[in-house]
Amino acid sequence: MDFKGRQAQLRTLFDTHRLDALLVSHLPNIRYLCGFTGSAGALLVTQAESRFFTDGRYTEQSRKEVVGAKIAVGKKGPLAAVADWLGSRRSRASCRLGVEAEHLSAASHARLKASLPGYVRPRPMPPIVELLRTVKDPEEVEKIRAAVLLGSSLFDQLVEVIRPGVLELEVAAELEYAASKAGAEGMSFPTIIAAGERSALPHGRASTQPIPASGFVVCDFGVILGGYCSDMTRTLYVGRPPTEARRFYDTVLSAQQAAVEMVAAGRSAEQVDGAARKLLQKNGLAKFFTHSTGHGVGLEIHEGPRLAAGQKETLHPGMVITAEPGAYIPGKWGVRIEDMVLVTDSGCDVLTPTRKDLIAI
Amino acid sequence: MDFKGRQAQLRTLFDTHRLDALLVSHLPNIRYLCGFTGSAGALLVTQAESRFFTDGRYTEQSRKEVVGAKIAVGKKGPLAAVADWLGSRRSRASCRLGVEAEHLSAASHARLKASLPGYVRPRPMPPIVELLRTVKDPEEVEKIRAAVLLGSSLFDQLVEVIRPGVLELEVAAELEYAASKAGAEGMSFPTIIAAGERSALPHGRASTQPIPASGFVVCDFGVILGGYCSDMTRTLYVGRPPTEARRFYDTVLSAQQAAVEMVAAGRSAEQVDGAARKLLQKNGLAKFFTHSTGHGVGLEIHEGPRLAAGQKETLHPGMVITAEPGAYIPGKWGVRIEDMVLVTDSGCDVLTPTRKDLIAI
Repeated sequence: MDFKGRQAQLRTLFDTHRLDALLVSHLPNIRYLCGFTGSAGALLVTQAESRFFTDGRYTEQSRKEVVGAKIAVGKKGPLAAVADWLGSRRSRASCRLGVEAEHLSAASHARLKASLPGYVRPRPMPPIVELLRTVKDPEEVEKIRAAVLLGSSLFDQLVEVIRPGVLELEVAAELEYAASKAGAEGMSFPTIIAAGERSALPHGRASTQPIPASGFVVCDFGVILGGYCSDMTRTLYVGRPPTEARRFYDTVLSAQQAAVEMVAAGRSAEQVDGAARKLLQKNGLAKFFTHSTGHGVGLEIHEGPRLAAGQKETLHPGMVITAEPGAYIPGKWGVRIEDMVLVTDSGCDVLTPTRKDLIAI
Repeated sequence: MDFKGRQAQLRTLFDTHRLDALLVSHLPNIRYLCGFTGSAGALLVTQAESRFFTDGRYTEQSRKEVVGAKIAVGKKGPLAAVADWLGSRRSRASCRLGVEAEHLSAASHARLKASLPGYVRPRPMPPIVELLRTVKDPEEVEKIRAAVLLGSSLFDQLVEVIRPGVLELEVAAELEYAASKAGAEGMSFPTIIAAGERSALPHGRASTQPIPASGFVVCDFGVILGGYCSDMTRTLYVGRPPTEARRFYDTVLSAQQAAVEMVAAGRSAEQVDGAARKLLQKNGLAKFFTHSTGHGVGLEIHEGPRLAAGQKETLHPGMVITAEPGAYIPGKWGVRIEDMVLVTDSGCDVLTPTRKDLIAI
């Protein structure tokens, strides 16, 4: 990973944000900028250098992992260590220090303010490292591709496991077991297995409910591999799907395909959302599509851009997003279909290879 | 669960903290106070009433779960909804509104401040709900006991799975699979399986390293059941343990027993830590004990009190804590033994039933 290049890119944003330095405390941002994967650290990026602060538990690990930053191991917490170091410098030049206001707690922010020397003024910042992270470099795309393929490879096992009477939680357990055995570092989020009426719950985490004799089963899951997340949804049907169910499924599938076809560099996030929504509207299902069409994925499961109404953000080559429209009729059923998609100059590259026709079990 | 009683208890603290109301935004605190288990909500507790704010995804769930609070479902985020509601009240009496400064991000805090009417003044608060949570009521103790027993029941399977050549990650996968099948809602934290030299890493998450032909294997894991966490550590030996290894193990075990024997209502957190440390010191191992002796456990895996040097907090009946001293010789080996313990008037009740003599595989 080109950690130094990322730090250099970050520094080019300092002028726009009127910063002399940025204090990076959000762990995924730290990992992105210097490679550290542990659970305690802070990265101070100034125009001249980068300095990584951690504690004794991470002496060895930080030496192995951190690239492009001097390492300071101390006894205090990382933020206190940053304040101490800033106070100990010879230079008393005023310093506008950006802090990650969306991640730093109000209490940590207050403590930091109180411990900084007078000539260092903390400035709450919008998520600027997150903005850099929305565009993935080729090495990241390869890692994401590997995570997506691992996730997809589990789907066949899922089809084998889902049978009437098996608990949703058992289905999830089998899936997660297979993921671990296949080398996943973990799941990207709590697995959703939502069967029968529960398929109408967009966030129906696997429960103790058994798979019914007939009905939809929404399966939404992802794995973490090499630090990167995958995310996919397929909806199966247990039993013989009636025509109405087939039609419902096909409408959501068309909406998903419309969203995918809208993805291209230069388009806006809301255009992709609009494409899916329009298709559902034409079929009278728009009001049952109660969430956004997708989100960026990378080191975190939910990253920018957000594909939703009103989101003007332009898609750029290298962004990796989900396309996951759904429709949910409370008390009856729901369907969601989700792929991960890489934005390219000419359109997009659908990363998820799994079939999307309705599978009846 | 006695949610109303807990809210009443919280209100008794308002005077001390010079509050008219508390805005609870930390999800485990919300669950503790009103029963809501979803992922988006805010609970406003005033002297007169409690009001729970969430969005449309949680209409049904909040009606089922929330006790002792009026429910307001809106389109805005919960904090914005709280500000709107406070602004819409007829009363213009000044209101000191506590906010959970350790959990609210600096950005959310700033947005909240900007959106509150002038007569509502937000006051950053220390973690007062967390303080209430340190003492568990009988229903919570029963839930914790069930989680601990489920965790312990997995230990036998662990002993079956650990064999030279099996990857640490495979051991963790088998354990987590068994946990899911047994009904666990998840693991309390990423499972630690640290074998051979890696046993010297106190936080050695299961890796792709195979279990070696001989050496210690530290196994530290926990399950979530009914929302409550368990936490236990046992250290096994693969192969025939040499006398030095047995002696090392027995010293850590004595330290663990010394810690457990020190637990009683009225003792301080640092006394328990000191008991373990003193035993290790007598055997020349104090400098290899690089973490604290334990922590509270409940809805979260790390709660108060912290059992460490300098922690004057008094133990009270109903606190549930871990006792988990360890010793780690870098590049050689490490041992940790951990039980969960309920503080009682007369001493303590060791909740973890698993044997603690050295098991050789």
